Amino acid sequence: MPRRCVRCGGEAAVGIDYANVYFCRGCFKEFFEKKVRSTVLKYAMIKPDDRVLVAVSGGKDSSSLLFALRKVFPELKIEAFHINLGIKGYSKESEQKVLRLVDFVKTNLIVFDLEKELGISIEDFKNTVYKGKICSPCGVVKRYLINKVAYEKGFTKVATAHTLDDVVALLFNSYLQGDVDGLVRLKPVLPSTHTKFVAKIKPLWEITDRECLVYTLFCDLPYVSQPCPLGGETTKMRERKELIGELSTKIRGFKHIFLKSHMKRMLPLLEASAKMPSLIECEICRMPSSERICAFCKRMRILNK
Amino acid sequence: MPRRCVRCGGEAAVGIDYANVYFCRGCFKEFFEKKVRSTVLKYAMIKPDDRVLVAVSGGKDSSSLLFALRKVFPELKIEAFHINLGIKGYSKESEQKVLRLVDFVKTNLIVFDLEKELGISIEDFKNTVYKGKICSPCGVVKRYLINKVAYEKGFTKVATAHTLDDVVALLFNSYLQGDVDGLVRLKPVLPSTHTKFVAKIKPLWEITDRECLVYTLFCDLPYVSQPCPLGGETTKMRERKELIGELSTKIRGFKHIFLKSHMKRMLPLLEASAKMPSLIECEICRMPSSERICAFCKRMRILNK
Repeated sequence: MPRRCVRCGGEAAVGIDYANVYFCRGCFKEFFEKKVRSTVLKYAMIKPDDRVLVAVSGGKDSSSLLFALRKVFPELKIEAFHINLGIKGYSKESEQKVLRLVDFVKTNLIVFDLEKELGISIEDFKNTVYKGKICSPCGVVKRYLINKVAYEKGFTKVATAHTLDDVVALLFNSYLQGDVDGLVRLKPVLPSTHTKFVAKIKPLWEITDRECLVYTLFCDLPYVSQPCPLGGETTKMRERKELIGELSTKIRGFKHIFLKSHMKRMLPLLEASAKMPSLIECEICRMPSSERICAFCKRMRILNK
Repeated sequence: MPRRCVRCGGEAAVGIDYANVYFCRGCFKEFFEKKVRSTVLKYAMIKPDDRVLVAVSGGKDSSSLLFALRKVFPELKIEAFHINLGIKGYSKESEQKVLRLVDFVKTNLIVFDLEKELGISIEDFKNTVYKGKICSPCGVVKRYLINKVAYEKGFTKVATAHTLDDVVALLFNSYLQGDVDGLVRLKPVLPSTHTKFVAKIKPLWEITDRECLVYTLFCDLPYVSQPCPLGGETTKMRERKELIGELSTKIRGFKHIFLKSHMKRMLPLLEASAKMPSLIECEICRMPSSERICAFCKRMRILNK
């Protein structure tokens, strides 16, 4: 006997393991969008007059984010931002998918092409101290550029597609290592603590990777399905996510329970004792930094050596 | 080619997975005893004039504890304490094993027989609200009696055989549930906070279940190998320990890393914000309690109903 949708009673198309419920295609899409909406409202992520820059990679998570935000808040000023990283056999296809996505969603797109604008490719880091491990400088470059572009173009919020799986993997690592600063920095909303630091929001904070994939498929969104040929998520993060996937099969709702306990019980206590570093301006680029030279300029220096 | 002992170069008899080293029988025993000694010293568990009552169940962990403590601190005033729980086909054998153990270790033994002293068996809880889940009242009864006997007989410390596996399973549960009070109460030393509350120490705090089993076998200590027929460890604890065993195969040294991060980084922050309940005297038995009627007297009332 086929499973029935918990909302409309129609034939189910997907099961949500942690909640033990089933949905048809249409009701799942509504469920997903309601979750994005309730997350945005719960953490007061967006005000009506905000201008939101949504970081899109071409992957399932950010495609879901852009499409759902547009649908849930039709009046909101949203634009998409994509960085062409110059990775052979990958970045071109990613940009193509993003172009189709914004055409579908009907939002403006800002593309930052590393080769055209800075004369570099993210692959250049392979020939530096980073060797095979270029996920770390890639993250630095992306975080820097999205903030810089958002600031220069007058956006008031940057939305990124960090999912529940990303968050719980980071939490798990931070608890295991006793990294209190890391725990305190990991939040659904990072407010603007410097005039040039645009507030960051994570509307997929409580939504799983799998839910994003299903939403992308049910909405027929264009997306790049293959992982980054240079490693994609770092090996450690991928291993942690697999481990947490296994934990979730043993402890139903593990990700949600862990995140909830962290947010409600642990974080307030940790925040009371942790100090956040104040931001100064980088001596080279004048963008916000916790040190004299910002992480981006340090990485660019490595490339120029 | 056989593995060699990391200390003496002789043929290895056991491998320590988390440290990737091997020991022969003799060197493993020394390694174990040094660890008990260093744990006791690190947390200042024992003073030379202490009188220590060691709780022994007849299982591998508490047998290891009694034997190692005697060997490492030959001058220390140690006696053993055993509770006969009145479990058919189990408690009798456990007491026999404990009698052989103390004969081997040459320590005095105090036996508290629930049937003789209180006219109850721990099995009586099966017919109450607890039904099959009697691990909880069993724990209450044991904790209460060892404290009461230690207090009445003038002991200054109670040593229990909680291992690293026990501690990490409890930590994992407490972090998952955001149980800050539970995290703050879980310590290698619980000082005396009431004249009738004897300080508790856990000398196996950094030693695994597996190390206790190997030590018990290498020292030919008498021990009960079968689990408690009524459940032994609660099902949830057993499941958590299995899960943590799996985590440890994926992340080498998981238990040690997690405990160290907790003790060094998290616990000081949590302690700063948590409040420990002050102890009053139970209205019925006059022993220390955080409520008007202590947990033990509440359980005894249930049996008398």
